[in-house]
Amino acid sequence: MIRLTLEQARELAHDILRSNGFSEPHVQAVAATVLACERDGYSTHGLYRLVACVHALKAGKVVADAVPEMIDQAPAIVRVDARGGFSQLAFRAGVPALLAKARQAGIAALAINHCVHFSALWVEIEELTEAGLVALACTPAHAWVAPAGGSQPVFGTNPIAFGWPRAGQPPFVFDFATSAAARVDLERHQRSGQPIPEGWGVDAQGRPSTDPAAVLQGAMLTFGGYKGSALAAMVELIAGPLIGDLTSAESLAFDAGSQATPYHGELIIALDPRRFLGSACDQHLARAETLFASIQDQGARLPSQRRYQARAGSAERGVQLSQAQYDELRALIVA
Amino acid sequence: MIRLTLEQARELAHDILRSNGFSEPHVQAVAATVLACERDGYSTHGLYRLVACVHALKAGKVVADAVPEMIDQAPAIVRVDARGGFSQLAFRAGVPALLAKARQAGIAALAINHCVHFSALWVEIEELTEAGLVALACTPAHAWVAPAGGSQPVFGTNPIAFGWPRAGQPPFVFDFATSAAARVDLERHQRSGQPIPEGWGVDAQGRPSTDPAAVLQGAMLTFGGYKGSALAAMVELIAGPLIGDLTSAESLAFDAGSQATPYHGELIIALDPRRFLGSACDQHLARAETLFASIQDQGARLPSQRRYQARAGSAERGVQLSQAQYDELRALIVA
Repeated sequence: MIRLTLEQARELAHDILRSNGFSEPHVQAVAATVLACERDGYSTHGLYRLVACVHALKAGKVVADAVPEMIDQAPAIVRVDARGGFSQLAFRAGVPALLAKARQAGIAALAINHCVHFSALWVEIEELTEAGLVALACTPAHAWVAPAGGSQPVFGTNPIAFGWPRAGQPPFVFDFATSAAARVDLERHQRSGQPIPEGWGVDAQGRPSTDPAAVLQGAMLTFGGYKGSALAAMVELIAGPLIGDLTSAESLAFDAGSQATPYHGELIIALDPRRFLGSACDQHLARAETLFASIQDQGARLPSQRRYQARAGSAERGVQLSQAQYDELRALIVA
Repeated sequence: MIRLTLEQARELAHDILRSNGFSEPHVQAVAATVLACERDGYSTHGLYRLVACVHALKAGKVVADAVPEMIDQAPAIVRVDARGGFSQLAFRAGVPALLAKARQAGIAALAINHCVHFSALWVEIEELTEAGLVALACTPAHAWVAPAGGSQPVFGTNPIAFGWPRAGQPPFVFDFATSAAARVDLERHQRSGQPIPEGWGVDAQGRPSTDPAAVLQGAMLTFGGYKGSALAAMVELIAGPLIGDLTSAESLAFDAGSQATPYHGELIIALDPRRFLGSACDQHLARAETLFASIQDQGARLPSQRRYQARAGSAERGVQLSQAQYDELRALIVA
C-alpha cells in the first residue's frame, strides 16, 4: 500500500487532470471532489475515478475546457449549462446564485444541464449545508435498472441525496442509489468472482440471478420494490424532462457504447430554514437534534457517520492506495 | 353489501360531519377527501375514516370550526396555520398562494402547521398536477417506526407523495408510507388473526416478529432498510422542525393516549415545468411520456393505475360498503 498525505493526493489529482488538458477551473473542481471522496473513505468515488475521467476525455465524452453558462431562469430557479464539461465546475458556477435565491425566496432550485456526472452527490450537499441550507439533490444515470414488475432497463442508479445542517458538527447527510446496489458493487463482485445477493438484478431473460456478469448484461433492480421504483421514476422526471435534460435511457443512447460516465442533468433543491422559521429557527433546529439523539441513543447510526470517522482518520494519517492503483494513476500523467 | 351512488356517499359524509358540529368549510373539504378515496377504491381512507374523524372531535383533538390563517412567509413560501383543524381546509386555503408563488418563482413550498391529518396525500397532489404543476408532499405521523439498526419507535409511517401532470390523462402519482407497511395493514391482520410478513416490525423487546399485536406494541420497521430509514428521517426533518412543527414522537406525546389521528404539519413543494422550461415545455413533457411508455410496454405498471381503474368503475356503479360499516357510519349522525 502507498500512503499519501491529503496534499500529496491533491497534487497527484492536479497533475493527472492538468497534464491531460483540463482547464484550471476544471482541475480544481474535479480534484476537490475526488479528494473529498478519497478522504472520506468513499474510495469507489475517490482518486481512482480519475481513470474514468481521463477515459471520458479520450472517448470524446467530456469537454476539457468547457465554460459553464449561468442562466437566471426564474426568481427561484438558476440553470447552469455545463456545456459538456464535468458537473463539478457547473455546480460551483451555480452555487452563489442558488444560495442568494434560496435566502431570498425561501426555497430555490439549481438545474445543471449538459454535464458529465461521475461523482457522489453528498459532496455538493455538504457545501450547501455548510451555508446553513437544507438540500436535496438527484440525477439520472445510464439505463441499467428495471422498474418494479419489469425486467428491461429504464432507470439509472438514480441517486437521491439530502442534507440538514447541524450546529457545531458535521451535517445529517444521506446519499444513496435507488437501485438495490450500486453499479460498482456489481463490478466488484464480478472482478472477485463472487455471486451477488438475491434481489440485486435479473439476467437478460428477466430471470432473477446472482451472477454479476449476467445482471450487468440484464438489468439491475431498484431497492425497496415498487417504492424504490417509484422514487427512481421521480428522479428520472425531475432531473430529466423537468430540467430539459436526458433520461437515463437517452444518456445511455448518447454514450453509444463508449462506456463513459453519464451525460445529462442534475437537480438540486435548497431550502433556507431561516426563511421558513424566522426568529424561531434555532429553537426548531434544536428539536431536530432531539430527533437525532433518539436515533443514536438506541444504538442506531445516523447516515454518513462512518464517512465522518474516515475523514478524521485521513486528516491525521492521509489516505492509502494499493501500489497497482497508484501506478495506474501515475501512468495517467502525460509527460 | 350496500351500494351508494357518489352523490349518496357525499350526502352521508356531509350529514355525519355537519351533525357533529363541523363548520361548513370543514364539512366540504373533509367530505371531498374521503369521497375521493372511497371512489378510488382506497377504502382504508374512504368514508370509514369518518369514524376516526368523529372520534378525534370527541377526544378534543380537532377543532371543528377552525379557520385556517394564511401567512405569506417568503416570496416562495406560504404557511397556513390550520389552528387545530383538519388539514384539508388548510390545504384548500393555501393552494391559491402556492400556485401563484410556484408560477412566479418557479418552485414554491406550502407549509401547513397545527393540523390534524388523517388522509392520503395523493388527493392534494392531484389538485396540483391538475394545475399543471409537479408536486411533492410529505408529513410525519405518530412515532410507531424504528430507525434502521434500532428497535425503538422514532418515526411515523411518514408518507411521501409525488405527482407529475400528463396531458389528456390522469397524472403520474405515487403516495407511499416509508414504513414497510401501513399502520392499517397491521390492524387488518390483527383483526383477522393473520400473521404479518417478516420485516414489518419488531416486538417490544426488539425481536423480529410476525405477530401484529406484538409489533403494534413494539415498533414497525421502514421499507428498504437503511435507505427507507433515511427517507423517514428526511420527512421528520422537512415536515417537522423545518416548518416549525411536531416530529412524530412529539405528535404521539401530544396525543397522550387518546388514539386520535396525528397532529402536526405537512410540507408540499410545487415546481412549475413552464418556468423551468419556457417554450420548450411541451417538448420535454413529451419525453416524459416516452419514459412512461418504456415502463408500461414491458408489462410493468405505473403507480396509481389501479386507483384510476377503480375511479372509472365508481363513476359508473357507485361505491360499496358492508352493511356493518354503513350502519356504523349512519350511527355517527347526530339526530
